[in-house]
Amino acid sequence: MFIQTFKSEGLSHLSYLIGNNGQAAVIDPRRDCEVYAEAAAVEGCRITHIFETHRNEDLVSGAPILAQLTGATVFHGPNAAADVRYAKTTRENDEFRFGNLQLRVLETPGHTDDSLSFVLYDTEFGDDAVAVFTGDTLFIGDVGRTDFYPERAEEVAGLLYDSLQKLLDLGDQTLIYPAHGAGSVCGDNMADREFSSIGYERRNNPMLKIRSRQEFISRKVQEHHYQPPYFREMERLNLVGSPAASPLLTPAALSPAAFKDLPDQTVTIDVRGISSFLGAHIPDSLALPTPMIPAFAGWFLNPDDKLVLVAASASEAELAARHLARIGFDRVLGYLAPDMPQWAAMAEPFRAITVIDLEEFKKRRASPPENWSLLDVRGKGEVEETPVDQAIHHYTGHLAEEASELDPERHYTILCGSGARAAIAASVLMRRGFRNVDVFLGSVGALMADG
Amino acid sequence: MFIQTFKSEGLSHLSYLIGNNGQAAVIDPRRDCEVYAEAAAVEGCRITHIFETHRNEDLVSGAPILAQLTGATVFHGPNAAADVRYAKTTRENDEFRFGNLQLRVLETPGHTDDSLSFVLYDTEFGDDAVAVFTGDTLFIGDVGRTDFYPERAEEVAGLLYDSLQKLLDLGDQTLIYPAHGAGSVCGDNMADREFSSIGYERRNNPMLKIRSRQEFISRKVQEHHYQPPYFREMERLNLVGSPAASPLLTPAALSPAAFKDLPDQTVTIDVRGISSFLGAHIPDSLALPTPMIPAFAGWFLNPDDKLVLVAASASEAELAARHLARIGFDRVLGYLAPDMPQWAAMAEPFRAITVIDLEEFKKRRASPPENWSLLDVRGKGEVEETPVDQAIHHYTGHLAEEASELDPERHYTILCGSGARAAIAASVLMRRGFRNVDVFLGSVGALMADG
Amino acid sequence: MFIQTFKSEGLSHLSYLIGNNGQAAVIDPRRDCEVYAEAAAVEGCRITHIFETHRNEDLVSGAPILAQLTGATVFHGPNAAADVRYAKTTRENDEFRFGNLQLRVLETPGHTDDSLSFVLYDTEFGDDAVAVFTGDTLFIGDVGRTDFYPERAEEVAGLLYDSLQKLLDLGDQTLIYPAHGAGSVCGDNMADREFSSIGYERRNNPMLKIRSRQEFISRKVQEHHYQPPYFREMERLNLVGSPAASPLLTPAALSPAAFKDLPDQTVTIDVRGISSFLGAHIPDSLALPTPMIPAFAGWFLNPDDKLVLVAASASEAELAARHLARIGFDRVLGYLAPDMPQWAAMAEPFRAITVIDLEEFKKRRASPPENWSLLDVRGKGEVEETPVDQAIHHYTGHLAEEASELDPERHYTILCGSGARAAIAASVLMRRGFRNVDVFLGSVGALMADG
Amino acid sequence: MFIQTFKSEGLSHLSYLIGNNGQAAVIDPRRDCEVYAEAAAVEGCRITHIFETHRNEDLVSGAPILAQLTGATVFHGPNAAADVRYAKTTRENDEFRFGNLQLRVLETPGHTDDSLSFVLYDTEFGDDAVAVFTGDTLFIGDVGRTDFYPERAEEVAGLLYDSLQKLLDLGDQTLIYPAHGAGSVCGDNMADREFSSIGYERRNNPMLKIRSRQEFISRKVQEHHYQPPYFREMERLNLVGSPAASPLLTPAALSPAAFKDLPDQTVTIDVRGISSFLGAHIPDSLALPTPMIPAFAGWFLNPDDKLVLVAASASEAELAARHLARIGFDRVLGYLAPDMPQWAAMAEPFRAITVIDLEEFKKRRASPPENWSLLDVRGKGEVEETPVDQAIHHYTGHLAEEASELDPERHYTILCGSGARAAIAASVLMRRGFRNVDVFLGSVGALMADG
Repeated sequence: MFIQTFKSEGLSHLSYLIGNNGQAAVIDPRRDCEVYAEAAAVEGCRITHIFETHRNEDLVSGAPILAQLTGATVFHGPNAAADVRYAKTTRENDEFRFGNLQLRVLETPGHTDDSLSFVLYDTEFGDDAVAVFTGDTLFIGDVGRTDFYPERAEEVAGLLYDSLQKLLDLGDQTLIYPAHGAGSVCGDNMADREFSSIGYERRNNPMLKIRSRQEFISRKVQEHHYQPPYFREMERLNLVGSPAASPLLTPAALSPAAFKDLPDQTVTIDVRGISSFLGAHIPDSLALPTPMIPAFAGWFLNPDDKLVLVAASASEAELAARHLARIGFDRVLGYLAPDMPQWAAMAEPFRAITVIDLEEFKKRRASPPENWSLLDVRGKGEVEETPVDQAIHHYTGHLAEEASELDPERHYTILCGSGARAAIAASVLMRRGFRNVDVFLGSVGALMADG
Repeated sequence: MFIQTFKSEGLSHLSYLIGNNGQAAVIDPRRDCEVYAEAAAVEGCRITHIFETHRNEDLVSGAPILAQLTGATVFHGPNAAADVRYAKTTRENDEFRFGNLQLRVLETPGHTDDSLSFVLYDTEFGDDAVAVFTGDTLFIGDVGRTDFYPERAEEVAGLLYDSLQKLLDLGDQTLIYPAHGAGSVCGDNMADREFSSIGYERRNNPMLKIRSRQEFISRKVQEHHYQPPYFREMERLNLVGSPAASPLLTPAALSPAAFKDLPDQTVTIDVRGISSFLGAHIPDSLALPTPMIPAFAGWFLNPDDKLVLVAASASEAELAARHLARIGFDRVLGYLAPDMPQWAAMAEPFRAITVIDLEEFKKRRASPPENWSLLDVRGKGEVEETPVDQAIHHYTGHLAEEASELDPERHYTILCGSGARAAIAASVLMRRGFRNVDVFLGSVGALMADG
Repeated sequence: MFIQTFKSEGLSHLSYLIGNNGQAAVIDPRRDCEVYAEAAAVEGCRITHIFETHRNEDLVSGAPILAQLTGATVFHGPNAAADVRYAKTTRENDEFRFGNLQLRVLETPGHTDDSLSFVLYDTEFGDDAVAVFTGDTLFIGDVGRTDFYPERAEEVAGLLYDSLQKLLDLGDQTLIYPAHGAGSVCGDNMADREFSSIGYERRNNPMLKIRSRQEFISRKVQEHHYQPPYFREMERLNLVGSPAASPLLTPAALSPAAFKDLPDQTVTIDVRGISSFLGAHIPDSLALPTPMIPAFAGWFLNPDDKLVLVAASASEAELAARHLARIGFDRVLGYLAPDMPQWAAMAEPFRAITVIDLEEFKKRRASPPENWSLLDVRGKGEVEETPVDQAIHHYTGHLAEEASELDPERHYTILCGSGARAAIAASVLMRRGFRNVDVFLGSVGALMADG
Repeated sequence: MFIQTFKSEGLSHLSYLIGNNGQAAVIDPRRDCEVYAEAAAVEGCRITHIFETHRNEDLVSGAPILAQLTGATVFHGPNAAADVRYAKTTRENDEFRFGNLQLRVLETPGHTDDSLSFVLYDTEFGDDAVAVFTGDTLFIGDVGRTDFYPERAEEVAGLLYDSLQKLLDLGDQTLIYPAHGAGSVCGDNMADREFSSIGYERRNNPMLKIRSRQEFISRKVQEHHYQPPYFREMERLNLVGSPAASPLLTPAALSPAAFKDLPDQTVTIDVRGISSFLGAHIPDSLALPTPMIPAFAGWFLNPDDKLVLVAASASEAELAARHLARIGFDRVLGYLAPDMPQWAAMAEPFRAITVIDLEEFKKRRASPPENWSLLDVRGKGEVEETPVDQAIHHYTGHLAEEASELDPERHYTILCGSGARAAIAASVLMRRGFRNVDVFLGSVGALMADG
């Protein structure tokens, strides 16, 4: 009887292959899902069941794709809004057997109305729960978001509270396997620890330590979460079922000639590291370093956009395309093969971004240059916790639509936590004609380290 | 904060890489230990500490080798007999920090006098134990053997009982990570489940359900375990430290000419599957199918023996050599490259073994052939549980030394649980000049399935 | 400018990825063709062209599949019979450029009417040919078969002769890259060497040393080649285009219960090694050891047959399924996970095959048992070269349809070159109710080694 | 009979595994040589012979290491200066057999006095050479350097001429396998093509088209090649034999604290891409992007230097360490794990380098800033072919020792072919206290593209 965890970096999405005695099930598969079938084969197992803890809003579900690949059946919780087309509905106390391994369904609404948890038993031993797959209901160190039904904010926070009591009732001995880990946009305060139990969380998870239902509800309704626009598309897609991603995720290597010959509307995405973008980049490209794609691509791209990448290597381009495919952006036409020196050596244009350090930052703040503003692009919570004097605030993800509130002729120094999101923000403004933007590398981190 | 599990199949040995914040530790590394360093690199960590839960008797410790490779320090429990040369001694309540991850030492003697457990805490959350590495003290579904100090049988069983109480005191929420899983010779009744917690074991592990110390001791002293002779060598080696295994574990492919030219005393080991050996094999070869090497090689081989393999492929030869190296048998001179038809096509000699099925077995038992005996080579416990009428009993592992009690001129039909150990036993007898041995394929399994 | 060779073992099929300057072409891709796209990505290239040297009769072309995956265009020679639906027609002297790399088409009919060769030039250096892709026209040490148009035997042999002169005219310096290597059924006398040039072949290839066109034709029309029935299906499929093979080639692991529950007509194929099959196998299974699948599966299976494998491991099952898919057998329902001892231990039936050695063979020939025959299953050419006294001859591949000429009540000892094909033949006869067949392991090889 | 090519990128070093019938040889192994043993195992071969075409001056020979790993014998040509300690001497016409494969030694001095070529025959076919391993004597499109014995310049150029005639005498059909490909510092004009034959080279290699011995000598003595100082160390090491590189080439991930705690003299090497270095880097680090390490590390580092890397990922650090180990720089203490934004966010210092583009370059040349110079760091040959007005010239590799000829207070704009070497040069000057250096990204490439 085994549980194998699959981490999708960036999204911090966790999915699971569980199996016993030649038969296996997958919980919350991601879109590029051959990996589960290969792992099952290594374990000498056939995947016969696929379980979804809820309709994902932040990634493309691989359930319908894996079902087609393997012949397995998909099970999903009851969904009032509309049926999940590719799944059978499963409900409280439904049971599934795989050799000695037994799964029991628990309805745990709150994060979404259709949220389920799956309790695992070992029928050879006893009646206690061994483990529970908690989806987005309970994380390690945190609990699920309840901001998806704003008009029912208090109700769904209460539902989540009740669902958590159900999980606590499984007993302290129960191991927990959530659908996300630290780094996910699905919770701000997850532990960086990858393993826990109901007992440990009961005593140490700050949200589970709140004993009053009413206090829990108040805390949840005060939380602030961002919802990138692509969430809507994910919700739609995960009802009807997404087609498989291309088996070939490595984008074509493009010569400069091929690159320049792309359709007019093609968006150039620079997926190299932050320093590379600052040092030299192609004019009008959008900075989206590969590990930041899952968190930010959905703010700036439309599913129909034609994309071309600037990447340091074929493998970086492959990983970037994989990240994009997992959140539904499939139209990657290729990547630029030459590096910036080669590109420049063909007399092609490039841009650099000025970076300033702590010393220069202090100087500017002490005696501000003319026509200059400080732009803070961190999240609302961060700004509230450690405000930066004199800075105007626009969240990175909102900058595409709020750019019109800024003045393209003005000089902006952009800051965030370290400079990474500031570089993305700089690229967003430069694509809109801002020419005088620079980045405070180190940003609030450096300010705080400096005292 | 991560825990990564490394399973060594065959031995069912479990070792762990744990890490946080760029620093990592390994618990109970195996001999072929580059794998930990590679995994740490992927996680962006440096291995600085190596912990041993006890002096292993069933495998070569990789601790001194990994220490040399990485510069890490090895920690081992207090050892009355003699100091472990390559390790520092660590004791009850010693603590080690890796970022937020903290390990605390627990002395848990019983299986051996130097047995330790390591309790893991997450300093960012609370004071409760998150997990414990239990070595050979507590397994999933079973507890450690206490047969290594026969003259102190009751005392060490009592020590183990006390150590288990210490573990229980950590609280139900604590995840457990033992040094062996199902299939190991270190416990007969381990669960096939790969995950558990103190709480689950407290309520469901049959040995932990025994509440009386005295009853626990009685149960332990009645257990029967085999100790293959290579255990002595492992104990010696794991005090002084073993050299690294060769980085080249794939044995050389030998032509028939090279194979026949090997030194006289070379032992030929047929590591192919059971059916292959039965179908055709080289005269005087010892049947040791690759997955059975860890359990049986130590009964029949000496550390100084020169070995040559008969394998179905280079990768099978590699895996077999790896299994052998893990238990201290390094002198593999190569493997025979041609398969049996090619070998036979060079007019080289081969042998087959007659297999009999359930029907034929019943016939023989009903009217025994002349000069015929039934030989049962199962373990003592199995024989007691399901005895086979008319069969004489010699355990597979004891057959090399007990062969002299049998008559080489007699006709033996050998049986075990399924026929696999019977084939090994047949090869052992044939190497000693027995010519009339056959194997009951299906063996007691078939008898029981038949009713 | 690179050429990368892809060997498909068993079929001994060779295909090539060539590229320069970000652009690549594939020559004669096989069905499981993701491998070319991945290799091109590693080289930083995009596959834009796919070339076929001829319509393959022995394997499923991957050209239409790779075209769909990459967007590349397929080019094929002029085909009188019918157009290749997925390809554009290319003709003598058509040229294609990839950076400095230039390919020129040469019509080289003979093996088939549509056979092309592709000559490679390096435009940075000179006008000489650097290399030529010769398809099934010229091999290393041999030339192509000309038995596919029996009614035009002399004509097509003459065409091949003329095509070979064209290749010789490219000059001694030209490297050659054929579509098959040693072990292929497309030629009996290929060198085991994997590299050569026009100059080396001109002087050392026995067929190129024949200077007279007429003598060449006589030699070719006297050759004997077998055409397994699946060749017809390949020819049909390679006109219309095959669908992609499943991305999941590892068959499902089946429990004995699932295995016994398969549809009635399912054919059980034992892909383990020869000795395994001889030692113990499932009644009525067909012996087809994995490496022998390409040569023999096409004689015994229909494209619509449902298949189930008996394999030693998941990876062996995967390789067997891959071999089967490459020649158009897709309906693999799974493989039996337990090994033979486990199978027998469930009281399931099994069979063994008696093997005899040289000594016993000689005894039987000296004084033949009653009702006994010697059955030689080698190819016609082998039998002519080294006939075996007293043996009746039926080629392994023909045995399914010629079994009716044999007597199921008779005792047959089967021989071939080593015993491998004899084991396949034994399984074919046993599936037809023959019960008294045994195999001479070593066979003609042993007889010759013995003198 | 197979030949497998191993490319070591960066050095453009080519080595070969050849084998037949279970036995294999390696020609010119590199230091990280497990790869040959693994490939031989896959081919079912044992490596018994190792051949060196000459004493390498640009990389650490893996011959003594592979010999120890496999038990093979090393063969080297006669060396007047001193015996190669780990090798047996082999001479003209010595022969070696591996099944049907035969190797014959040809003494081909010129590049070095001990240069050998190895001619390959297939004894099953004919007496013609099939292929020849040409070491640094003959490349594809070029011939070997003859600048290692300056006092014997004409003599050794003449020796090389004579050796090339020997190779030509093998016949046009002979395939060639040299020790380097395009990109190596061992020849400027190698073809980017990876395959050729004696016949093709005879007619198309510019140096082989020179028919007069005297003219050939004149051409060779006029060539200009750079000899980085580490060449001397390689020559010394490749006489006595280098120890194996560490099996763990992935450097330890260092936290900022560990990074700052390194010994004082540690050299920080930034192996990230050029743009990254320009965008933000650690003060006083040396820019050596991973693919440029083989060509430039040997100019700036001493074998005893302690090194620490700044890399974008563990895999980049691993590749960089591998490149360094291949040329004898082993003392890599780790790599900095955080990226530049994280580094800066700890208030740690960083620097950026100003880049200028074509437009700005033209402006400056039209009206030079005060106290400004243009510094060209290309090779002598490049400067002669396309001189840049107003630029002073110091070759990149010479800059460490020639920096004293420049003025640290002056403003330098550095250029090369594209900007890559210019960035290295900028880092070299900044390490020596120059503060006002910038890089013309695009450099001569952009000037030429611009016309």
